[in-house]
Amino acid sequence: MPLAFSQLEDSQPSLEHIFHPRSVAIVGTLSDPAYVGWLQGAGYRGSIYPVNPSFSEFLGLRAYPSIRDVPGPIDYVISCLPARLLPQLIEDCGQKGVRVIQLFTARMAETGESDRIEMERDIVGRARRQGIRVIGPNCMGIFYPEGGLSFVFGAPRESGSEGCLSQSGGNASELVWDGSQRGIRFSKVVSYGNAADLNECDFLEYFIQDRRTTVIAAYIEGVKEGRRFLNLLRQAAAAKPVVILKGGRTAAGAEAVASHTASLAGTEAVWEALVRQTGSIAVDSLEEMADVLLAFSCMARPEGRRVACIGGGGGGSVYAADECERVGLIVPRLPSEMKQEIKSFAPETWLLINNPVDVSVTGSPDVLFRTARLVAAWDGVDFLITMAAPVWRLDRVRVMADFFRAIDAYMEIATTLKRPMAVVVPEANVPEDWKWQGIMEGQRKLIEAGFPVYPSLSRAARAVSRVLQYRGRLPAQAEV
Amino acid sequence: MPLAFSQLEDSQPSLEHIFHPRSVAIVGTLSDPAYVGWLQGAGYRGSIYPVNPSFSEFLGLRAYPSIRDVPGPIDYVISCLPARLLPQLIEDCGQKGVRVIQLFTARMAETGESDRIEMERDIVGRARRQGIRVIGPNCMGIFYPEGGLSFVFGAPRESGSEGCLSQSGGNASELVWDGSQRGIRFSKVVSYGNAADLNECDFLEYFIQDRRTTVIAAYIEGVKEGRRFLNLLRQAAAAKPVVILKGGRTAAGAEAVASHTASLAGTEAVWEALVRQTGSIAVDSLEEMADVLLAFSCMARPEGRRVACIGGGGGGSVYAADECERVGLIVPRLPSEMKQEIKSFAPETWLLINNPVDVSVTGSPDVLFRTARLVAAWDGVDFLITMAAPVWRLDRVRVMADFFRAIDAYMEIATTLKRPMAVVVPEANVPEDWKWQGIMEGQRKLIEAGFPVYPSLSRAARAVSRVLQYRGRLPAQAEV
Repeated sequence: MPLAFSQLEDSQPSLEHIFHPRSVAIVGTLSDPAYVGWLQGAGYRGSIYPVNPSFSEFLGLRAYPSIRDVPGPIDYVISCLPARLLPQLIEDCGQKGVRVIQLFTARMAETGESDRIEMERDIVGRARRQGIRVIGPNCMGIFYPEGGLSFVFGAPRESGSEGCLSQSGGNASELVWDGSQRGIRFSKVVSYGNAADLNECDFLEYFIQDRRTTVIAAYIEGVKEGRRFLNLLRQAAAAKPVVILKGGRTAAGAEAVASHTASLAGTEAVWEALVRQTGSIAVDSLEEMADVLLAFSCMARPEGRRVACIGGGGGGSVYAADECERVGLIVPRLPSEMKQEIKSFAPETWLLINNPVDVSVTGSPDVLFRTARLVAAWDGVDFLITMAAPVWRLDRVRVMADFFRAIDAYMEIATTLKRPMAVVVPEANVPEDWKWQGIMEGQRKLIEAGFPVYPSLSRAARAVSRVLQYRGRLPAQAEV
Repeated sequence: MPLAFSQLEDSQPSLEHIFHPRSVAIVGTLSDPAYVGWLQGAGYRGSIYPVNPSFSEFLGLRAYPSIRDVPGPIDYVISCLPARLLPQLIEDCGQKGVRVIQLFTARMAETGESDRIEMERDIVGRARRQGIRVIGPNCMGIFYPEGGLSFVFGAPRESGSEGCLSQSGGNASELVWDGSQRGIRFSKVVSYGNAADLNECDFLEYFIQDRRTTVIAAYIEGVKEGRRFLNLLRQAAAAKPVVILKGGRTAAGAEAVASHTASLAGTEAVWEALVRQTGSIAVDSLEEMADVLLAFSCMARPEGRRVACIGGGGGGSVYAADECERVGLIVPRLPSEMKQEIKSFAPETWLLINNPVDVSVTGSPDVLFRTARLVAAWDGVDFLITMAAPVWRLDRVRVMADFFRAIDAYMEIATTLKRPMAVVVPEANVPEDWKWQGIMEGQRKLIEAGFPVYPSLSRAARAVSRVLQYRGRLPAQAEV
């Protein structure tokens, strides 16, 4: 059973109760959005009450015509009703002692119509008078795998340490889905839409205090309480990293933001200053957000910015050096003692072997892995970026075997030598099924072993550089 | 039969003959690199002579101990011999009347050793005295699908209009492989390594004159003839776009470049000025190079920079607007007449429908496609970027059917209305085989119909913006 409210300690964040409903009622449309199925799939252990007068049963559960007809107490209501039915719903919720309403219901302030803006204000006012907090409107609500709350089909049940607040339900879903595939696990994710009541500050404050959350991701379209938000970001950055994607940084984006969540986007300059002053980490896309979360959660902490890049080809090694240096990393050349050691097992090519370690020069897997081991053991670097073969090379079964051999060798080296490592594995966007299976299997092995996997060297380098930047291990002038 | 040298017209570029050998001898290692098999696989129609004293036959062909033992004339020699055997090879080539030697042979100037640098110089001197041109050393040579020359396993035999010169054989292979998967077809690709004899200027000049080539891609680590290169780039940009990726733009990259192709990387500032002055198109990665080539070759020419983005979700539409504007595109809002028309079939949601067209607002496929058709027919936009569902949405068979329906609808709209269109389809990096198959099938349909497919909105927007920039349709201050 989930915690009862009374069991929650005083020291817990004030919003803790919204994540621990003993029961959830889903009111209105039941199949799309499919909250009943999502909660069941996520293993929610409290009571689920479908509420819709057209159903007597839904997915094996008894359905009720109105929440007033539900026999037990209701803590949490998910509204999939049209907006015009909300006043009655709030009234009923008040009588039932509901604590939280999440409004999937949309077409309110984001329409830009004055009557709809007024309606949104009115709804929140009614809820507050009844002592009810509102999440939304125009949002997906809460994903909390440990508590069995979900709005993402097929997301893993395991809990993790990444928290996320997002004004977009689609972005939240995408981050959970994409992140989960890559090994990121979330503590709690909140999609909060128009932020008519609970807003970015409430959730940010919650995540700052939440001990289960070690990294905070935020997708923000507009800020409701500017001063409070600034202060919270300052507090947050001292406690845990905040990775922010801002929607509506351009004029066109700001217009899209207005009709998406009725947010005032603000100017890009103000936003940039805010991020810089508070030590938050700004990212440019959702995929970059996942990249950075992955570096925080799945990679041992690098002590500095010196990187060894291992396993690219000739042009790929040049690219690796360029991309690493562009984001503020250092790619040190190998010292002459190590070159002499390499000479002992690579008498023909040792002159050309350096960092990045170029597979077109090392040639045999034996020379490659012996070199990789020496480089990884060297105290002249702080972490490794290893590269499995690019997809175009994986053209034969033999090469596929080399790909797995490389993955195994890199995992073994990083584990034995306790070295932070990011691994680059190509995406399996290939027509041949043996190749697709092989690449996915290679990724799976790495992800299950807890390594961060990136589809390109530049994404890996950039993500690690953000972690180093946050930890003050990167000079501020680096172009990241 | 390939053209004989005498059949080539005078008006053809002076290097034309190197692409039309009547016969090719592969000397030294035969299996890795696998030139004999590559030429056979590419359908080379001249004579192939494996030359290696350890073989009497190779892949069904008679092998010879030395090129002097080959009965017929030899136009083109591929050397996979160690460097120390080259003087004798050049001598033999001179006697056989060979016109071109491609040196896969490496470990010459790029070692940085004075005797190796001297050896490279000596080899080129010997070749020139015999009237032989040298490609390389340290290179993969020529990919010329129409002539049956290849160094890429499994590349398509169809010819196209993209020419490429690359100092890296790996990068050239990757571009050909990746580009081919995406529908790019090449006229000729040359990997020329250390550029000891034929250099970037020779090949650039060739591609400027080559009528089959309409777009030139170049991966350059260093420039051998700076003044000539500048003049050629100027000439080129007036005739056809040149898309350049520079390797070695940072100090670490420059060191990698020195040991890769013995090139002097030059400073980034000089390089940037060069690109800007000549109207070339600089790209930051190989994948961006493929993106831009695709926009040039597979997309009808947009007349301006006004884009309609169709098919993303709420957060995705905000992102689309931001990313488009960031690269200098304009995302115009829909005019009120069109909104009224949309109102007739979307009375509930028309207020929220705009450009970008957000699928979380249009809801049903019917409303989405009717809106898409109206927007595509509007003369207020110059081209379309359409988005098939993001990968996280493709969680059920029904949604997969919607994905195909969207692809079909977008193709039909763009074709009927003759609108330039780029399509965003997620990469098939997914564990479920039905999903992988579906995504690959969606991509295949679009690519076979001649549409450019991008894995993300930002890559599509950026690629099209480069095309517009080249055509003078983008203000210079746009951040691209």
